[in-house]
Amino acid sequence: MNAPLPVVRDVPSLRNEIAAWRKAGLRVGLVPTMGALHEGHLSLVRTAKEKADRVVTTLFVNPRQFAPHEDFERYPRDEAGDSAMLASAGCDLLYAPDRAVMYPEGFATNVIVTDVSTPLEGEFRPHFFGGVATVVSKLLLQSLPDAAFFGEKDYQQLQVIKRMTRDLDIPVAIEGCATVRESDGLAMSSRNAYLNADERKIAARLNLIMHDAIKAARAGAAIASAEAQASRHITAAGFTSVDYIAIRDAETLAPITDLSRPARILAAAWLGKTRLIDNMAV
Amino acid sequence: MNAPLPVVRDVPSLRNEIAAWRKAGLRVGLVPTMGALHEGHLSLVRTAKEKADRVVTTLFVNPRQFAPHEDFERYPRDEAGDSAMLASAGCDLLYAPDRAVMYPEGFATNVIVTDVSTPLEGEFRPHFFGGVATVVSKLLLQSLPDAAFFGEKDYQQLQVIKRMTRDLDIPVAIEGCATVRESDGLAMSSRNAYLNADERKIAARLNLIMHDAIKAARAGAAIASAEAQASRHITAAGFTSVDYIAIRDAETLAPITDLSRPARILAAAWLGKTRLIDNMAV
Repeated sequence: MNAPLPVVRDVPSLRNEIAAWRKAGLRVGLVPTMGALHEGHLSLVRTAKEKADRVVTTLFVNPRQFAPHEDFERYPRDEAGDSAMLASAGCDLLYAPDRAVMYPEGFATNVIVTDVSTPLEGEFRPHFFGGVATVVSKLLLQSLPDAAFFGEKDYQQLQVIKRMTRDLDIPVAIEGCATVRESDGLAMSSRNAYLNADERKIAARLNLIMHDAIKAARAGAAIASAEAQASRHITAAGFTSVDYIAIRDAETLAPITDLSRPARILAAAWLGKTRLIDNMAV
Repeated sequence: MNAPLPVVRDVPSLRNEIAAWRKAGLRVGLVPTMGALHEGHLSLVRTAKEKADRVVTTLFVNPRQFAPHEDFERYPRDEAGDSAMLASAGCDLLYAPDRAVMYPEGFATNVIVTDVSTPLEGEFRPHFFGGVATVVSKLLLQSLPDAAFFGEKDYQQLQVIKRMTRDLDIPVAIEGCATVRESDGLAMSSRNAYLNADERKIAARLNLIMHDAIKAARAGAAIASAEAQASRHITAAGFTSVDYIAIRDAETLAPITDLSRPARILAAAWLGKTRLIDNMAV
């Protein structure tokens, strides 16, 4: 059994811990999360621990990245369970601020990224990236780690955070880490916990359909027809609806007509009230 | 004659200089400017030098805080003159980035402060505070000084910067410094250089009319009528037009109906094509 993970809940305590590490010449890695941890998060912690001497994981379910009709209230929360998992993965400190620490009275600032945040998720969740960019800039500036680690599972989010960090000159390296998948290829996600047994089986079809679309595009199918066919397959597999399945420029997420530059396939689809996303290199 | 002031023009060079000072245990103060320096700026440098061991002054005429019809092109520029004045005031380093350093290809991030940025200047210059908050967050994060010094001459800007710095957890103390005035009370401003001799005489009336409005409000006049009378006096003094003259809450800049909390009088008025602003504690 591991020793319990130390936890801090305010910015001065967080900065004190990190300042002590820095004074000792240690490199610090940050893993921002909304809790409800799974193996995907733990792989971020392990990667961070390989690349830094000390790892801080943040746990904050950020209300500003949920629209009023979204699942903020029912989003899974289990700090004790998360804390035990983090300790076993080599995390050194949990930072779990409450809402008043993150958004004090009179809070009035938003970090808005245009361009890369506009299509795909930006179209279907217009509040999302403003909320993400604002909270991530805060978490980075509260802790000022050497590097921060984000999963490629949220690929567009990763691109938005990279752009925001470069544009604002936040002195932190942003590292993307490969998506961790279940044995049937389903991308791990805190929201998978919402799925019933039938939905869970259907969910596993998404990554296979994306692989097929990649194959079709690489074999010379027009991008638009590979996308359209994949969309039909997702619905046929039993998904309730498809928000998008798109092959895009891997950096800007702009539409493309051929594979001459690095490309990425990204998808979002609904199973009942649960929205799943996934992406892969083409 | 002073030794020439060292200058850096990119972020790595700036960070190298500051890292060396930090390693030596020195406190660093930052004075962001758009150049065209006058005694007001130099007083910021002197205050910074009293409160810190080393002072960096930034010189960047920020295109993003000018609307297309505003005076970006004709804004006065004299880096050699500015540099000599800074050296004599005790500045240790000039940071003068060009546009490509501040806004590289693909720049897509804006820092937007609502609330305190909405009235007054926000109403008449809707692009202004977005441009200011974005560039100041960049300058603070490029240099990460212990403290940054801003003039109260741009009082609303100072409040916006304080809010933004607190909201984003930028680890820099923001210090406001008193407005420096000419012998006739005119607030020093780089834009005073636009005034001809006749306009210069009229300009000096603004601060006197503001003092009268403060007296009237303190003597019990209704806020709205003190404002209306002051506005009439500004026009009668020969100003071309009045954008606003308003007595507001000193922190939020919200309208008030009495002087039970700290208040500030703020004004903006035009002399020909030159826009002057001023403010005072009530």
